[in-house]
Amino acid sequence: MTAFPHPDLSAPRFAAAPDARFVPAPADGVLPDGFFSTTNLPTYVKLAGGWTMPREPRMDSALVLEADGTVWVREGRRVRAGDPVAVGQAEDGSEGIYVHAHAFLGGGGEGEFRFMASEVSREKPIDYGLMARILLDERDRGGSVVWVTGPALVHSRARADMVWFIERGFVGALLAGNAVAVHDIEASIFGTTLGMSGTGETTVGGHGLHMRAINQVRAAGSIAAAVERGIVRDGIMHACVRHGVPFVLSGSIRDDGPLPDVVTDSVAAQDAMREHTKRATMAIFVATALHAIATGNMLPAFVTEADGSLRELATICVDSSEFVVSKLKDRGTHQAFGVVTNAQDFLHILRFYVERELQSRALADAGAAAVGAAS
Amino acid sequence: MTAFPHPDLSAPRFAAAPDARFVPAPADGVLPDGFFSTTNLPTYVKLAGGWTMPREPRMDSALVLEADGTVWVREGRRVRAGDPVAVGQAEDGSEGIYVHAHAFLGGGGEGEFRFMASEVSREKPIDYGLMARILLDERDRGGSVVWVTGPALVHSRARADMVWFIERGFVGALLAGNAVAVHDIEASIFGTTLGMSGTGETTVGGHGLHMRAINQVRAAGSIAAAVERGIVRDGIMHACVRHGVPFVLSGSIRDDGPLPDVVTDSVAAQDAMREHTKRATMAIFVATALHAIATGNMLPAFVTEADGSLRELATICVDSSEFVVSKLKDRGTHQAFGVVTNAQDFLHILRFYVERELQSRALADAGAAAVGAAS
Amino acid sequence: MTAFPHPDLSAPRFAAAPDARFVPAPADGVLPDGFFSTTNLPTYVKLAGGWTMPREPRMDSALVLEADGTVWVREGRRVRAGDPVAVGQAEDGSEGIYVHAHAFLGGGGEGEFRFMASEVSREKPIDYGLMARILLDERDRGGSVVWVTGPALVHSRARADMVWFIERGFVGALLAGNAVAVHDIEASIFGTTLGMSGTGETTVGGHGLHMRAINQVRAAGSIAAAVERGIVRDGIMHACVRHGVPFVLSGSIRDDGPLPDVVTDSVAAQDAMREHTKRATMAIFVATALHAIATGNMLPAFVTEADGSLRELATICVDSSEFVVSKLKDRGTHQAFGVVTNAQDFLHILRFYVERELQSRALADAGAAAVGAAS
Amino acid sequence: MTAFPHPDLSAPRFAAAPDARFVPAPADGVLPDGFFSTTNLPTYVKLAGGWTMPREPRMDSALVLEADGTVWVREGRRVRAGDPVAVGQAEDGSEGIYVHAHAFLGGGGEGEFRFMASEVSREKPIDYGLMARILLDERDRGGSVVWVTGPALVHSRARADMVWFIERGFVGALLAGNAVAVHDIEASIFGTTLGMSGTGETTVGGHGLHMRAINQVRAAGSIAAAVERGIVRDGIMHACVRHGVPFVLSGSIRDDGPLPDVVTDSVAAQDAMREHTKRATMAIFVATALHAIATGNMLPAFVTEADGSLRELATICVDSSEFVVSKLKDRGTHQAFGVVTNAQDFLHILRFYVERELQSRALADAGAAAVGAAS
Repeated sequence: MTAFPHPDLSAPRFAAAPDARFVPAPADGVLPDGFFSTTNLPTYVKLAGGWTMPREPRMDSALVLEADGTVWVREGRRVRAGDPVAVGQAEDGSEGIYVHAHAFLGGGGEGEFRFMASEVSREKPIDYGLMARILLDERDRGGSVVWVTGPALVHSRARADMVWFIERGFVGALLAGNAVAVHDIEASIFGTTLGMSGTGETTVGGHGLHMRAINQVRAAGSIAAAVERGIVRDGIMHACVRHGVPFVLSGSIRDDGPLPDVVTDSVAAQDAMREHTKRATMAIFVATALHAIATGNMLPAFVTEADGSLRELATICVDSSEFVVSKLKDRGTHQAFGVVTNAQDFLHILRFYVERELQSRALADAGAAAVGAAS
Repeated sequence: MTAFPHPDLSAPRFAAAPDARFVPAPADGVLPDGFFSTTNLPTYVKLAGGWTMPREPRMDSALVLEADGTVWVREGRRVRAGDPVAVGQAEDGSEGIYVHAHAFLGGGGEGEFRFMASEVSREKPIDYGLMARILLDERDRGGSVVWVTGPALVHSRARADMVWFIERGFVGALLAGNAVAVHDIEASIFGTTLGMSGTGETTVGGHGLHMRAINQVRAAGSIAAAVERGIVRDGIMHACVRHGVPFVLSGSIRDDGPLPDVVTDSVAAQDAMREHTKRATMAIFVATALHAIATGNMLPAFVTEADGSLRELATICVDSSEFVVSKLKDRGTHQAFGVVTNAQDFLHILRFYVERELQSRALADAGAAAVGAAS
Repeated sequence: MTAFPHPDLSAPRFAAAPDARFVPAPADGVLPDGFFSTTNLPTYVKLAGGWTMPREPRMDSALVLEADGTVWVREGRRVRAGDPVAVGQAEDGSEGIYVHAHAFLGGGGEGEFRFMASEVSREKPIDYGLMARILLDERDRGGSVVWVTGPALVHSRARADMVWFIERGFVGALLAGNAVAVHDIEASIFGTTLGMSGTGETTVGGHGLHMRAINQVRAAGSIAAAVERGIVRDGIMHACVRHGVPFVLSGSIRDDGPLPDVVTDSVAAQDAMREHTKRATMAIFVATALHAIATGNMLPAFVTEADGSLRELATICVDSSEFVVSKLKDRGTHQAFGVVTNAQDFLHILRFYVERELQSRALADAGAAAVGAAS
Repeated sequence: MTAFPHPDLSAPRFAAAPDARFVPAPADGVLPDGFFSTTNLPTYVKLAGGWTMPREPRMDSALVLEADGTVWVREGRRVRAGDPVAVGQAEDGSEGIYVHAHAFLGGGGEGEFRFMASEVSREKPIDYGLMARILLDERDRGGSVVWVTGPALVHSRARADMVWFIERGFVGALLAGNAVAVHDIEASIFGTTLGMSGTGETTVGGHGLHMRAINQVRAAGSIAAAVERGIVRDGIMHACVRHGVPFVLSGSIRDDGPLPDVVTDSVAAQDAMREHTKRATMAIFVATALHAIATGNMLPAFVTEADGSLRELATICVDSSEFVVSKLKDRGTHQAFGVVTNAQDFLHILRFYVERELQSRALADAGAAAVGAAS
């Protein structure tokens, strides 16, 4: 992944810049006039003559100064009356806040991977090998890959492939809605999704099966309880429960039921999702516009390593049309790499390439071990 | 609109049918095994030898018998422990519940308007004249037209046309999300939507303008308060406040802010929406998949007149691709009539045809008055 | 594949039917008034009291009686003045012509493969295993699989997979346009398609590379000559030349060049394509609306076996949106089975499943041989 | 429209540049190695120390020097053995050829109309008023507006609006395919398109009606003859014939019939189309990918006025998805302005705005006349 160099903060323009100015919030959940509105790019705030990066970066939020001198990126609704909030609109450092908008353009030689480099198009080649290597690297370095998925994943046969990724440690958290879990659980209990069989046939009396699946989980009290009681015996939610993979099911007005695990309050759901986006080192969005854009809004475009260095936060967005990816980028998730294809096919091929990469790495390790043993 | 004849309930098969069977709900929000799952079609329940239609019809819900002998269609989550809930899966009356699935196919001569008759396609002619007449008829008979809109309506210049419809009494209720109101209010305060000018240009510093608009309304306390204080001076939300048109803004995980009026709990938002769908006599969905399907789930396919007769509930779904309309129909909103076009163009032409129809009706009225005066 | 039973032509309604009536064509390429316009379904013509099926079935054409008593399906433009052409509009046999429109609905038990059974949707599961088995079966029985492809196939990495299918005998004929061959040959000569590298990057000076590729082939005189001279060294066209797979490159007004092999006259190109559709026992359309619909128009919905029995002509249509498939079906190619996905991913997974099926058949054969040897 | 300033050809870098180099074409239709491949941007060629602009500019072609010292832009296939063809790949003048790629970026104050300035999106506002004014200006100054249309225009009710534009002189030439004319003529003779009535209903026996329409015109000998004999009595083709508007119907492999007027050879059709694109001062593409890209390939991005000054060639591309417009731009027609909407709605609103603009200009003229009379 592309490393982002920090700007040269010793340059005269940065030295000459004033400290950032903070103004108390006038009321709970209300920001002062002229508040600084954040982006998802590397941002530097001048405090007492030195530059610091605010914690938990995301776009469309405020910069709040804590008593201990740390600066946090916080949604306006979470700001309390009296909190010191940064003001200013300049992003060039002249008011004490610098947004490193060109981070993406610096560094990086020719051969390096650049998610941003390409326009989205169904006619562009898709480099599954590269995506597989990045995914494996993230797992191996202990990163957290956030998966955000829409129900198309479960309608189609991608369900088995998704389980495969969960079981092997490639899913740090699953962010989805009620429908993903409902379809998945209907498939486990009745073998159908929305009453449609696994080969796409409509079944008799099928239109109510998702309601019956929901009712069984409501009776059990939670998805985990339904797994424990043997009501839900396979599938995506089953794998998450069995393998301790955290999930957030956010409520929507379109929900049937909903399932007892659904966070019906959208603000609480955002908070629950952000717990995972804060830690994310990679993101994969599959067949969902709403959840992808929601998550994109919460994700920084970069990962901050333990040593303070920055690198691009690889973000893959899979959809069957260019529209969703373009919209995601328009809304500011510039780093998103679009894959215009069918959700089922994407998962299937990605799994195939990850399996192949695993084999080749195992061979390489075995070879290295043999060499080691021989020496 | 097509009238739906009731089935001949005196036929032997209906006479021979048993009463519907009711079983107590085992817990709050949990339905008994084998519960009957409703559709949006005319449904008849046999009680004490007679057939009755349940009140507040919608799909994916349960039939609950009240102590006074009325049957209500109620979402599973709203059922309380001990409520008598209808059980049975047969829809042909043989278990005391009859779904008149062929209501749409009966009655109706050749020339009659049939929303259902056509496949969705961008290549089909769009009969704006007919839609304009239906809309006027609904207003004149005191019906309630529910409008469900996505943010594309506000991005484009359709905002002025939407205001026109609100001001003239064509909008019974507006169901939308936070984004519609945010874009509309940003346009009123700053003249931009997501920082883009009315001619589609990006403005400097524009990316934070929607956050500033939200913050101003949060400071005011509500949209109505922001209208009263002169912060919001025109647009869709302004027109709703000024003309007393009720609106429901449902929360979603993608919301910025949100605005103080947003119902952030999705279950509470569904309840608020259903207050309007219960009374709806027509529905217009513009450029929204999520809200359209949510509303479609709550709408019966028919209107019950005061005299008990039934007619089709005209449902227009406008989107720039066939996909949303097809999905809406797949999810059971069979009566939806798809218009595959741009939201801005749809509203513009519909308004033009409504204006023309108003003129021709005014002329006809004037002519009739003149004839009346002369006679 | 579904077998199509012939109708029971001994039934009284068929026995009572008159012979079909033929009227001479008034001029070359002009049909008599009231001509019978064919469909792609099994059709029976009554001649001298007996029923016969016309040869070379396709839709939108005329039935021409030859002197030897055979009936041919022929495009209007190919009819000569004086040719006896069937007249009548009834398709129920009452005028001596019977279209077996319900052929698809008869026969066929539950588990049988039915291409027609499903609506097109990106959310339907895709049964690659089944498609792989059908493709192998066609090859093994000596059928001819017609592939019809658009340029998206070559833009993306599907090129290598397409070569794989050609080399292994899965391609009976390739029907495409100038662009497919130009992109493929540009990739062979310069490593780019439309100046874009294999990883999707734009190359310097790239915009003219396709013109240079075309010019080299024009200088050589033909694609085969360019292969022989080592100008074109790999790719789809190279594989066709090397493996003797016939191809038709049809001209279009959008063509650059064109390449010398292109049949620039659209009527001649149709004739050339029909030579292959006449013999086709399966068809695969990938990422092309124009060529898919053109070929669909020429294909019967069924294959006539040597013994006169009929079976469905498996037709797979791959596109990234539902629109093309729906349009293809609307235009009468009812038997098309839609796969809504990316062309590159489709070929990649299909190849993977064909490889797996080949292995499992090889194992089964080996097992059978071992058993045979042991007995 | 944006004026394009010429580059300052007196600058030292241009003065120092060598003359362009020309090499004889090795054979008919074959270009010399290293030929210069043209773009659609303003191009300057140095000859005998002076700079000249080649005539009949278009992309993907060669520069051919005539004996009289003029340079022509000519497709490779039209070059004859021995013709002097410009060679060189540099576009910066260093090899005697300069492409003014930044022409679009120079000049133009803020308020000026810039087709290029916007990304394509269904969410962008559409400025019909501006398009109406440009269209009227072109007509009034004697420009030639080339309309390129797909069959969706005729399926829908846009047919009447298209006739309106033809009758009032807004159409300089109509470039289309067989299908547009077939649907239009079927509508005139039978009142259907592909057997579908004007309200979108399928008619009995409808599937063959387009074949019967074609046959009648084939019998008449030409569309003009069919108009004269009263077979075709209204519609788009009728209006073209009656008002002397030239049309080119280009053949394709998907054509039924085709109609006798269709130019079935694609190379001849390109030549026929280019006769019109050479003279075009504006272009409108409606609901056609193939013909739009074909025409875009032939159009310069600019108009050369009689006085040698240059201005942008306004190019509007209407389609129901962003894809076609993006592809058109990707293929080099950068100046295209995308309108993402339904073809029927586009024509309807554009006509409405043109009518309004006509009225306001008539009023202004009347006012000016009154003032003139009074003074």
